[in-house]
Amino acid sequence: MARMKILIIICDGMADRPSYELKGKTPMEAASTPAMDKLAKLGSNGLMDPIGKGIVPGSDTAHLSLFGYDPYKYYCGRGTLEAAGLGIYMKKGDVAFRCNFATSDSDLRILDRRAGRIAFGTEELAEAINGLEIDGVKVIFKDAVEHRSVMVLRGPGLSSKVSEVDPHNEGEIAWKSVATEPGAEKTADILNKFTRMSFDILHKHPINIARKEEGLLPANIILARGPGDVPDIPTFKEVHGMKASAIVGITLVKGLCRILGMEVPEIEGATGGADTSLENKTQAVLQALKDHDLVLWHIKGTDVFGHDGDAVGKKEFIEKIDASLAGLVDKLGDDVMIAITADHSTPTSVKDHASDPVPLLIYGKGLRADKCQVFNEHEVSNGSLGIINGLELMQILKGLGGWNDKFGA
Amino acid sequence: MARMKILIIICDGMADRPSYELKGKTPMEAASTPAMDKLAKLGSNGLMDPIGKGIVPGSDTAHLSLFGYDPYKYYCGRGTLEAAGLGIYMKKGDVAFRCNFATSDSDLRILDRRAGRIAFGTEELAEAINGLEIDGVKVIFKDAVEHRSVMVLRGPGLSSKVSEVDPHNEGEIAWKSVATEPGAEKTADILNKFTRMSFDILHKHPINIARKEEGLLPANIILARGPGDVPDIPTFKEVHGMKASAIVGITLVKGLCRILGMEVPEIEGATGGADTSLENKTQAVLQALKDHDLVLWHIKGTDVFGHDGDAVGKKEFIEKIDASLAGLVDKLGDDVMIAITADHSTPTSVKDHASDPVPLLIYGKGLRADKCQVFNEHEVSNGSLGIINGLELMQILKGLGGWNDKFGA
Repeated sequence: MARMKILIIICDGMADRPSYELKGKTPMEAASTPAMDKLAKLGSNGLMDPIGKGIVPGSDTAHLSLFGYDPYKYYCGRGTLEAAGLGIYMKKGDVAFRCNFATSDSDLRILDRRAGRIAFGTEELAEAINGLEIDGVKVIFKDAVEHRSVMVLRGPGLSSKVSEVDPHNEGEIAWKSVATEPGAEKTADILNKFTRMSFDILHKHPINIARKEEGLLPANIILARGPGDVPDIPTFKEVHGMKASAIVGITLVKGLCRILGMEVPEIEGATGGADTSLENKTQAVLQALKDHDLVLWHIKGTDVFGHDGDAVGKKEFIEKIDASLAGLVDKLGDDVMIAITADHSTPTSVKDHASDPVPLLIYGKGLRADKCQVFNEHEVSNGSLGIINGLELMQILKGLGGWNDKFGA
Repeated sequence: MARMKILIIICDGMADRPSYELKGKTPMEAASTPAMDKLAKLGSNGLMDPIGKGIVPGSDTAHLSLFGYDPYKYYCGRGTLEAAGLGIYMKKGDVAFRCNFATSDSDLRILDRRAGRIAFGTEELAEAINGLEIDGVKVIFKDAVEHRSVMVLRGPGLSSKVSEVDPHNEGEIAWKSVATEPGAEKTADILNKFTRMSFDILHKHPINIARKEEGLLPANIILARGPGDVPDIPTFKEVHGMKASAIVGITLVKGLCRILGMEVPEIEGATGGADTSLENKTQAVLQALKDHDLVLWHIKGTDVFGHDGDAVGKKEFIEKIDASLAGLVDKLGDDVMIAITADHSTPTSVKDHASDPVPLLIYGKGLRADKCQVFNEHEVSNGSLGIINGLELMQILKGLGGWNDKFGA
């Protein structure tokens, strides 16, 4: 059987609930999406629990599951994924943290967890931290979008089994990290020394002196959370025998894809937000399909509108995706199978991830179609795929695409 | 609750994909099947993954699963099943091989792996081989259809962990079998002696001398492959408490049913092909239902048309099955439940087995009906059975038929 290439399009958090602003429709129902609807009509549809019934997925755990990796076995913590997403290559024994630039007083009482959502100057602040050595352990530090940053500790005897420094509430003093498992005491101690040291270095940094002069909150402390270590995880190629590429803007999913050994090109204008360049991403998808067996196209914007509670904005962004999809589908060969889904629901009424199952469509030339006419949460519940678990997605796609060998005679 | 008898009708490879020759319909959709449609209308319908999502089933592994045996635990290799299908009763310690009559020169270089698809005379050739003794091991040898045959080695210290003799390519010298696990050296040695001996005996056999005079390729060597041993598998009666019979033409499925302890009568005219006598088989089904709790009616022809890529032929054969079914159903008592399904999809566009789920209907007097009006891949996706796994089929049928005890009070 001739093998088909596979294009998986994940619209982050696209699935929703009925919305008051859309007269009881979900953003997917309210949106005009002729391209998705055509694929739904010509393909098979269904619902998917990304991780399991009632489980509220993170984007990272959901993507693991959709790639065929049990997240309960393989999830390694956010710090590791963010580090990989920023291009920090971790070594066995390293421990990574997701960090915030925050505002503190000299008692390390946290006045603002995001340093007034600082937008500029974090690169210079990160440089002042990067390369520190504490008790023989090296600090690798890199800034990300706005107040976000990532730290990797490298040295002998480290452990990720330490508690967080970020108190998660303003007005509290930065928490003392403690070992959550025996043997992690050294790491907790280094982390506490680092927190104090970050204040000592940053509070007198010229960038912060300038910020205070302008009436802005100084970014004068680093709050670490989400410790992660290097996962013992087989590559996507090892698991599925497929050469894969991911066209994605956000650091978290980029990092996961890199850890799985996928090719993750940097796409100009792929911001991981609603202002992302869908045009550049569809070009990158077409390019990647030329020499890869499987391509992930990840679109973050839908999730951003979900978290903001903006149902109308979400509907309009879905229509933008659909327009890009229309242009893309016309350029695909007959040998490309398309799956469209979400990694989780982000209902605008909830403003956060929810456990509601997500719609899924699978289209490929010559494959079966079912009775669904349009693509949304409501219609696909009558589709022929039924309700699948996210962990089954790759098996279904590989089976349909001719990637699985016959078992038996 | 009065128990119902169960008739399972498996149309091998019947499920398909939309076909160009049938204007986008599948053979099941295009076929006129009033008998199946009536049962679908009066019964419950759904889809079934014979082994699992995305798994491409063999007929042997799929039947194991549909009978309620996990194929990942119980699949024992093709040689054993083919031997049992030919009526060779294996004992613990025996090793079975699927064999070909082939054409070789005196260096054992293989000129034709199928001896010109020899059609006549293999019975006499098999007799010349059957009963040989090599180093205290007895050779049980039996011819099957055309160039196919089966060998069972019986004696002390044998192992199935040996490599194949059949080089799978013409022009190559027959491979030397080697042990693939320690302890199998003796079996490999006997197999190599057998291969040489088969040439020494067969090349001067009168049948082959006559073939050469007629300008036909001699069937002068035996090539063994697919080693299998006696599986440690409970009988169907032990697992389900039901006395079962199988009305089946093809050796592979016959063998499996015999290994499970089912009664497998020889049916005149049941060829395992499109020319099979459906009339004789329906008579045999009626006969078997008199004194068995469960009867399997297996029909191979649908799969043959699938492998040949003949959508129109497949449609017409499904119509023949339906006509036989109509005559059969009229003669069944009210105490017989009917399940109709396939062991896997064999899409004519693929010309091989595929992972697409198969349609399933269950009808029994007094049981629930759903909204499905006709029996095909498309319609049953809205049936009340949903999508089940093959391993669940026997439990569902036994539950509905009153064979399962209450769990609890």
